[in-house]
Amino acid sequence: MEIVINRNCNTPVYLQIKNQIQHKIISGELTDDYVLPSERSLAKQVKVDRSTVVKAYMELKAEGLVESFVGRGTIVLPQISKNMTFDKLTVPKINWSQFVSQDFFMNSQNLIAQIMEAHQHEKVISFAGGIPSSDTYPIEIIKTLQNYCMDKYREKLFMPTSIYGCMELRKAIKKHAESRGINASVKEIMITSGTQQGIYYFAKLFVEAGDMILVEEPTYLGAIEIFKSARGKVVGVPVDEEGMKTDVLENLLLRYRPKFIYTQPSFQNPSGATLSIRRRKELLKLAYFYQVPILEDDSYSEINFSGKRFPSLKALDKKDYVVHLGSFSKSLFLGMRIGWAIANEYIVGRFGSLKQITDLHSNTMAQYLLSEFLIQGYYAKHLTKVVGEYKSKRDLMCNEITKYKINGLELSIPEGGYFLWCKLPENIRLSVLMDHAIKEGVMFMPPDPFYSNGSIGDAYIRLNYTYPSKEEIKEGVKRLMEAIRKAQIRKCPQGEVSYSNRNPIF
Amino acid sequence: MEIVINRNCNTPVYLQIKNQIQHKIISGELTDDYVLPSERSLAKQVKVDRSTVVKAYMELKAEGLVESFVGRGTIVLPQISKNMTFDKLTVPKINWSQFVSQDFFMNSQNLIAQIMEAHQHEKVISFAGGIPSSDTYPIEIIKTLQNYCMDKYREKLFMPTSIYGCMELRKAIKKHAESRGINASVKEIMITSGTQQGIYYFAKLFVEAGDMILVEEPTYLGAIEIFKSARGKVVGVPVDEEGMKTDVLENLLLRYRPKFIYTQPSFQNPSGATLSIRRRKELLKLAYFYQVPILEDDSYSEINFSGKRFPSLKALDKKDYVVHLGSFSKSLFLGMRIGWAIANEYIVGRFGSLKQITDLHSNTMAQYLLSEFLIQGYYAKHLTKVVGEYKSKRDLMCNEITKYKINGLELSIPEGGYFLWCKLPENIRLSVLMDHAIKEGVMFMPPDPFYSNGSIGDAYIRLNYTYPSKEEIKEGVKRLMEAIRKAQIRKCPQGEVSYSNRNPIF
Repeated sequence: MEIVINRNCNTPVYLQIKNQIQHKIISGELTDDYVLPSERSLAKQVKVDRSTVVKAYMELKAEGLVESFVGRGTIVLPQISKNMTFDKLTVPKINWSQFVSQDFFMNSQNLIAQIMEAHQHEKVISFAGGIPSSDTYPIEIIKTLQNYCMDKYREKLFMPTSIYGCMELRKAIKKHAESRGINASVKEIMITSGTQQGIYYFAKLFVEAGDMILVEEPTYLGAIEIFKSARGKVVGVPVDEEGMKTDVLENLLLRYRPKFIYTQPSFQNPSGATLSIRRRKELLKLAYFYQVPILEDDSYSEINFSGKRFPSLKALDKKDYVVHLGSFSKSLFLGMRIGWAIANEYIVGRFGSLKQITDLHSNTMAQYLLSEFLIQGYYAKHLTKVVGEYKSKRDLMCNEITKYKINGLELSIPEGGYFLWCKLPENIRLSVLMDHAIKEGVMFMPPDPFYSNGSIGDAYIRLNYTYPSKEEIKEGVKRLMEAIRKAQIRKCPQGEVSYSNRNPIF
Repeated sequence: MEIVINRNCNTPVYLQIKNQIQHKIISGELTDDYVLPSERSLAKQVKVDRSTVVKAYMELKAEGLVESFVGRGTIVLPQISKNMTFDKLTVPKINWSQFVSQDFFMNSQNLIAQIMEAHQHEKVISFAGGIPSSDTYPIEIIKTLQNYCMDKYREKLFMPTSIYGCMELRKAIKKHAESRGINASVKEIMITSGTQQGIYYFAKLFVEAGDMILVEEPTYLGAIEIFKSARGKVVGVPVDEEGMKTDVLENLLLRYRPKFIYTQPSFQNPSGATLSIRRRKELLKLAYFYQVPILEDDSYSEINFSGKRFPSLKALDKKDYVVHLGSFSKSLFLGMRIGWAIANEYIVGRFGSLKQITDLHSNTMAQYLLSEFLIQGYYAKHLTKVVGEYKSKRDLMCNEITKYKINGLELSIPEGGYFLWCKLPENIRLSVLMDHAIKEGVMFMPPDPFYSNGSIGDAYIRLNYTYPSKEEIKEGVKRLMEAIRKAQIRKCPQGEVSYSNRNPIF
């Protein structure tokens, strides 16, 4: 067995010996059961210390290439990889779960999958979702615009866009943002695949394992999942009729020194609460004082029934503390997966870096289509129409629920957004209600996913009024009230629904 | 100052004291410059040990709420947050970089951005990109299909799809995959936003900091970035005319015990090499023997000029070791951002979990559009057309380069894919060539980004022949050869281009 030592090479001598023997075994030069020279004789042959050969043989043993047997010496073991015939393999199937990273976070996919599933069943009326009414989709306008874009932009529609999104849409969003009081340059605007991706990028950029993150309680379940998947610790700030309670916030800022605050200041999901202007300023002041950035998820702000406009936090912020996320998913439709982030150039640059790694850019056609939808003035008209439609659906759902006069059922009337956040009577167990609701053929969202710790004392349910038709709202409320009655402990007397024009305590 | 201690409460007594004083300060009950009782007297008042009060005061000091002054005692500090007027703030702008996670990986965005930028300049001829020819886009067919889909699917085109993608497309891809020898159920197929997202999800699911990952060397730069962003360690396996060298692979498997192997077995980017059938089986055998999963990026397999079909690794794999990623980005166009993963149900479930966190689902319209494009048989026809087109462009580029007879320039002729991988003459410094090329008005890809360690001894460049027109190929090659001549050390004699029908050593 020839071994050549190169004393000018950086590789340690023992490793040179090991590597050469290894190569001889794998290449088949040394056959199975070949007896290696003794450590002493090899050491003599290549003129090294015996301990060097011992070390080389130890490495070979550790890798399962050779084995020492008393009386027989060091023997080359049969290499399965060399002898296996591909077509006659007896190896078992892979067990993928043993390869999964310790950091991998499994979310509440089952719940969401269940709810998405329920939307497919025609017999079930779902108040559980959070999508726009399909009656409102401007199908004919989009069809016309698609043909228009195809003629105007031609091959551009099929090309990649910049990682920041196509310039036409960024300019259109710049103008759109101005209507919300936000003055940003196009360099401060980036297209994302929905606000979901914006929240994900923000978490990816800032959250380290163990970081504290403050959110409204309750809040968007997707945000909680994202922050937890980044191994952040999520702490809830209670919400009342003026939105996030800023006095409690200051206490929590002091106690936890969080990495950032995530908020949906307008018609937040699920509570429907809106941060008052006074509190918006208070929130910013606290952010400045404690040097805590804010992630503003503005998804629902345009579904505004009151006519009263609240400036976005980004519009009020003069110190660059706010990263603003916007979307057409709630005002137009969800299927496009187009949202945007408005932030200073530093953040936009980092988000671009993440875009390049995760999916390169968002769908090109959808970007041009939406830019034309905005530029040609269709968006403004569409918004007026859907807001009117959703307001009347909200009213209908509230009125229908009131009719049933269930004692202890507390309703809030949100001034915008997608949801009623209902407090259930105290004598109801949620799991029992769920069972009855499924039997009756109606779906709602349970409260747990909206809380960072996954459970609360008071039982609320979230009801969506935008997706179901008016007939479905009537029939669905009937079924739900029947389910609530059946789930109630029998002896409870029935009476008035507690009802208020402002949000009660959330 | 009243402090109430609850001895039945889980909160330590010192923290009860601290929290109560903190609340009094923030609420304004204790005004600025209020003098707290001495530690001794408060200890006496609430009947605790003095050290308990000392600890409480220390916490208050640490949070900047109070300060001790010799002779004055412990004083409540002015709380800026309480006294600040929002409109008269003097706080500085935020410094975002100080909040960024230590784990955040900044990629070679500048290079890619530069190249994308170059595509916009009309005067520069770019061989640097990796996108299909815009002449081939089936604009009229897509226009017809869009209208067809709009009439057929209506509101479905605007709704969210499942996190796994729309069933119509998954079924169409199931059938498409069968033509590559892959038999998968629809439950084993998931839609992603391009193969990019598939690679990202795979890394997200499996890579932990420090994990070793084996890739071909050179390989797709985006994959290297993704693995490094997940803090994996990337090790290259050399490639020759038969693709990844499986004998070296075995050595590296032994040495590094990697988490997985990433490979582009067909017409890989950038080298154009294709793994022979013998090596495909060898690769799988080694994967089984060393229990190392394989991520198969099959992006280029359909751009096949030879007519010889290679079964995908997924088709050969009977032990579930391969996760297969496919895409229409190279055969159709990039702007759709639709790709797919084929893997067992366990992996698809985990990918779904990641989809839900990162962007919910891919663009709905693009999914339906592509499913109709496949179902109605347009794809097969389109593929025949583009493969013919790209083959003649490859021939043209090779012939043009050969004409200039630059000594030491080595060309490989790939049997498919998008790129020529050219070895430069030895007397050229790459940075000098880059400068000359920019002056001449031609762009190419330098080799460094395709190597995991970012630098190699031999200087190669990657030239794309699919995107430029035939006139641009002629003119661009002229400019590039001029740049090479100028970058060469003067005294070098000119002669024959070394030229082979097979790939030389990469």
